[in-house]
Amino acid sequence: MSARGPAALPLEVWVEFASTYSYPTAMRVEADAAARGVRMRWRVFLLGPIFAAQGWNTSPFALYPAKGRYMWRDLERICAAEGLGFRRPDPFPARSLLAARVALLAEGAPWEGAYVRAVFHAEFAEGRDIADPDTIRAALAAAGGDPALVEAAGDGAVKARLRARTAEAEARGIFGAPSFTVGDELFWGHDRLETALRWAAGGA
Amino acid sequence: MSARGPAALPLEVWVEFASTYSYPTAMRVEADAAARGVRMRWRVFLLGPIFAAQGWNTSPFALYPAKGRYMWRDLERICAAEGLGFRRPDPFPARSLLAARVALLAEGAPWEGAYVRAVFHAEFAEGRDIADPDTIRAALAAAGGDPALVEAAGDGAVKARLRARTAEAEARGIFGAPSFTVGDELFWGHDRLETALRWAAGGA
Repeated sequence: MSARGPAALPLEVWVEFASTYSYPTAMRVEADAAARGVRMRWRVFLLGPIFAAQGWNTSPFALYPAKGRYMWRDLERICAAEGLGFRRPDPFPARSLLAARVALLAEGAPWEGAYVRAVFHAEFAEGRDIADPDTIRAALAAAGGDPALVEAAGDGAVKARLRARTAEAEARGIFGAPSFTVGDELFWGHDRLETALRWAAGGA
Repeated sequence: MSARGPAALPLEVWVEFASTYSYPTAMRVEADAAARGVRMRWRVFLLGPIFAAQGWNTSPFALYPAKGRYMWRDLERICAAEGLGFRRPDPFPARSLLAARVALLAEGAPWEGAYVRAVFHAEFAEGRDIADPDTIRAALAAAGGDPALVEAAGDGAVKARLRARTAEAEARGIFGAPSFTVGDELFWGHDRLETALRWAAGGA
C-alpha cells in the first residue's frame, strides 16, 4: 500500500450537475470537510465528453435499464436516509452545460458552494430544468451571486476553461461522478465520500 | 419510501467468483450477518450471461480501461483496510464456471461458506487459477467438503441449476456483483453490505 496523501493536500470534489449521485455528495461535502478540518475545492466538470470517449452517447443509467432502475431506487433510499428531498428529473440526464459554465465563474467566491447546492436542489429536489437560464439565475440569486453571470457564461474563455477542466478530469483517470482526488489518489462514488475525507485528513 | 423488509426475510448474497468486489464481501459477510442475527443465503451465479445481454463480451473493468485501473487501486485499498491478502489474478476475469457449479453442490452444507471463501482466497490472495480443477479440489478439501464434487459438477442437472440461478438473478434486476437482496429490495456493491445488513435486520 502506498503512502497516504499528506494532510496539506486539498480534497478535490468532482461533480457533474447531471449526475444523480453527485447530488447527495454536493449537499453535504462542504460541511463534512469543514467538520474534519479538510480543505476542499469544487471541481465542476462534464461527464458527456468522457462518456463519449467510452462509446456512450448518454448516461450509462439510460443505456443499461437494470442499472438505471437500481440507481433510482438506491438514490431514493439515500435521499431518505440523508433527509434530502427527491424528485426524479425529467428529462434525464439533464443538460448541465450552462450550470457548469456558471460554476466556473463562481469559483473562489464565498457563495460558490451555495450555488452548487442550489443547482442540485433545483434539479433533484424540485425537479426543475437546469438547462433553463431562469433556473440558474434563481440559483445564483439564492446563493448570493449575480444572476447576470448567466450571460457571462457564454464567453469563449469560460467555454475553454470548462473543456480544459473536463480534459483534466479524464487525464486524472476520472470516469464517473462524484469523484474525489487527493493528490494522485482517486475515489469514485458518493459511497466513497467518507473514505476520501479520511484520506484527505491524513488518517486511516 | 416503501416499507423495510421484515426481519424474517433472509439476506441473499449474490456473488460471482470472477468478480473482484465479491472477494471482500465473501470474506466477511457470513460473520457480519451472524453478528447481527441476520439469516443469510449464498446465491452464487454467473455474470457472463448478464453482461452478454448488455452487449459486453467481458468484464466492464476490462472493457473500460479507466474504470479498470481505478478498480484495482480501490480493491487494493479495501483489502489493506480489511486485512485481506491481495494478488491481482491473471487471467482476469477468471473463468468461474467450475467453481460456481461446485458451489451449487455445496449449498446447504455446513462447509458451504468455507468453500466460497477458500475459492476467493485462492484466486485473489494467492493468485491461483480457479478454472483449474486442482484449485477447486484444494478449496473443497480446505473447507471440509469432498474433492470428488469436482467431477459431479459436470452433471447436466448442475449445469441447468446454474443457468436457472443466473436467469433468476437477471429477472430480479441484478446486473453486477456482489449484490444483496432482501425480498424485492436490491443492493449492489461491496460498499452496500452494511446498508443491506441493516435492511435485513429490519433496522435503519
